[in-house]
Amino acid sequence: MTQQLQQELEDLKKKLLTMASYAETALNTAMRALVERDDELAYRVANEDDLLDDLEIEVDEQSINLLSKAPLATDLRFITVAMKISHDLERVGDEATAISRRVLELNGEPQLKPYLDLPRMADMVLQMLNAALDAFVSRNPTQAAHVIPRDKQVDALNKQLTRELSSFIAENPANISRCLALMMISKRLERIGDHATNIAEEVVYLYEGRDIRHLGKDLSALTQSKA
Amino acid sequence: MTQQLQQELEDLKKKLLTMASYAETALNTAMRALVERDDELAYRVANEDDLLDDLEIEVDEQSINLLSKAPLATDLRFITVAMKISHDLERVGDEATAISRRVLELNGEPQLKPYLDLPRMADMVLQMLNAALDAFVSRNPTQAAHVIPRDKQVDALNKQLTRELSSFIAENPANISRCLALMMISKRLERIGDHATNIAEEVVYLYEGRDIRHLGKDLSALTQSKA
Repeated sequence: MTQQLQQELEDLKKKLLTMASYAETALNTAMRALVERDDELAYRVANEDDLLDDLEIEVDEQSINLLSKAPLATDLRFITVAMKISHDLERVGDEATAISRRVLELNGEPQLKPYLDLPRMADMVLQMLNAALDAFVSRNPTQAAHVIPRDKQVDALNKQLTRELSSFIAENPANISRCLALMMISKRLERIGDHATNIAEEVVYLYEGRDIRHLGKDLSALTQSKA
Repeated sequence: MTQQLQQELEDLKKKLLTMASYAETALNTAMRALVERDDELAYRVANEDDLLDDLEIEVDEQSINLLSKAPLATDLRFITVAMKISHDLERVGDEATAISRRVLELNGEPQLKPYLDLPRMADMVLQMLNAALDAFVSRNPTQAAHVIPRDKQVDALNKQLTRELSSFIAENPANISRCLALMMISKRLERIGDHATNIAEEVVYLYEGRDIRHLGKDLSALTQSKA
């Protein structure tokens, strides 16, 4: 590998880390907008999302350009994985923006109850995202593999919240619009967990050459015992 | 381009069309399971989804292999677009499987009302998917561009259905679980519309070299006037 190519691959990696930091900020801002009932913050999320959209296109262009210069299979794999990670991070921005739209709806009505579970869920998916990106940077497929089973906890929390909110509606149908908005936020957080899981699977593939997507329960059984 | 490379790119294209046909079958099967209240059909959807998962991995492996042989920027673009289309088709399979799980829940309870809007929505997104794939095969970016604004209609139908189902819950809270299941199906169909839109955008990028993702309203205004 030439020194220049090496440098360009490093730049690509840095761009992904920049994207990850925007994605994290977008989600944190959306959740603060919810908890602090602050419309100003909710509007700000769209800006971070725009930056992510632009960066995704940059990463794609840079990757296509690099693909023509990279002779080794490992480099090709790195570049295609970078494109996928970039896409997942851009989607995290989309989810954060969708959350902020629901927050604006919710802020227009009296608060149903203190939001405790949603911020906890947001913390869980942010930790997954961080761990997956950290595993990418430190070339640590084992760390990445440990992220994957944590998605089950996020899924379980989403199901529990959906059940609770359903019973809130049953108790008082006037709660419908607020409960549906909260359910949608929970669902969006659950999808951010999916994106973190995708990234973790990509990192395992990148450094171990094993494609573990779609393995489902087998893998989570494997890693849960070690978790 | 060598004749062998040309042949391998054709094979890749064929594999995508196979995936498209499985994705279509998966969605059609899930919708028939809903309308005909047939659990057997709902269980069958997971099989098509498994085939899609396997094909996505095959397409990725074949693509990485081809990337090292393809010297031209247009070939590189074709291959990376193929990987993205394959990912979107695999996700359509996931959505169909998620729909079939909701269908099983719904089939266990009395029918709330005849399902008319959901099959109509499924037809809309299947037509979008077909048109996008057709544009890919016939190298027709204009046809692909016309798919994109149709997503707005699907979004509008999803919003309308969600509103209707919300008022059903308000009228009778005992309808909650069935209404939520139907809302989730509507949301999944809306996401299949998003995947068809992604594919259409990729096809425009492939044949025109313009990246039109994230252009949003500007583009839909542009193409709607011609539609």
